[in-house]
Amino acid sequence: MSATAAQAEGARRTRLTPEREGELYTAVLDLLREAGYDALTMDAVAARSRSSKATLYRQWQGKPRLVAAALRHQRPPLDRLDTGSLRGDLHELAGRLGEAKKDVAVLQAVAPAAHKNKDLAEALHEALIQPELDVLQAMLDRAVARGEAEADAPAHEFFPHLVTGVLIARPLIEWCEADATYLKRYLDAVVLPALLRN
Amino acid sequence: MSATAAQAEGARRTRLTPEREGELYTAVLDLLREAGYDALTMDAVAARSRSSKATLYRQWQGKPRLVAAALRHQRPPLDRLDTGSLRGDLHELAGRLGEAKKDVAVLQAVAPAAHKNKDLAEALHEALIQPELDVLQAMLDRAVARGEAEADAPAHEFFPHLVTGVLIARPLIEWCEADATYLKRYLDAVVLPALLRN
Repeated sequence: MSATAAQAEGARRTRLTPEREGELYTAVLDLLREAGYDALTMDAVAARSRSSKATLYRQWQGKPRLVAAALRHQRPPLDRLDTGSLRGDLHELAGRLGEAKKDVAVLQAVAPAAHKNKDLAEALHEALIQPELDVLQAMLDRAVARGEAEADAPAHEFFPHLVTGVLIARPLIEWCEADATYLKRYLDAVVLPALLRN
Repeated sequence: MSATAAQAEGARRTRLTPEREGELYTAVLDLLREAGYDALTMDAVAARSRSSKATLYRQWQGKPRLVAAALRHQRPPLDRLDTGSLRGDLHELAGRLGEAKKDVAVLQAVAPAAHKNKDLAEALHEALIQPELDVLQAMLDRAVARGEAEADAPAHEFFPHLVTGVLIARPLIEWCEADATYLKRYLDAVVLPALLRN
């Protein structure tokens, strides 16, 4: 399901307009930056966003899924990414990922909590990681169907790790983000040769 | 400088035996697990390890470098890793990295602090990341000298990112650590084809 469809479904289920839903996520993100994950309460979110706690629980069941949904809402959508070639798709992906601004304060609030809290880790995986894995798998499936990539090449298993890993590793190694130019150079030097048929 | 040489030099400068230095690092790591980075004080380390604060400051200048040295002490040493082939070196590296136990409690205490504290981030880079980058660069230089790898291949720039990235990405994507078997499969499928001369 695309991000837009997911938002539309969310709005229908809660009878919240997309605008209201966006305001609610903004309240959640502001509270995360101010207080961190552990101190964030559903009461505070309800007060800040002028919603009822019942609405929050009906839609998101609890804090982990509400926080995950708010983080997802900030992300650049990766749907409708189908240029007709694997290189085109990956360069388009690089552009979207490389231009996305990291909300460092929110990530600092959530990341340590995710290490300790299994419900939060699962909600983040479901809202943030699984949809991106699905996008990458669909991209690779199309490349195989077009004959660009071999089916079952040993590198396929590592495709998501190659895309995710460099985003995290570059700041650790070089003190700077993996921007779009860097990502495209990396994809051409490493990822495409590993995936494309010789 | 090898880890052993660095330890010997550290011991000489402080007139601490390696055993005393090890006890001191254990005290630092215990305090990090108990209290986190921000609450750790040089006074507490001095008391717990029965050393003088003067010794701690003379040797490590302050908390960031002391904590970085304690974390480094826990790591598997990556020196003397020269098997005669790039594949041999990388598989040996996979064995050492894949078998290293992660001290999750210590990492949880230090990682969020490193995001906020530039001195700590720099000390961790110097103690943990730069030595591993040097090991990888030496490994690649030997492979180029032996004619196994081309000089200046475009993938070389990304060699450390490929090694580091998968260690962080696999737990995020698959909920499990990159063990030695997994790392060897990854190295053979992606990293060695990118580095070795065709």
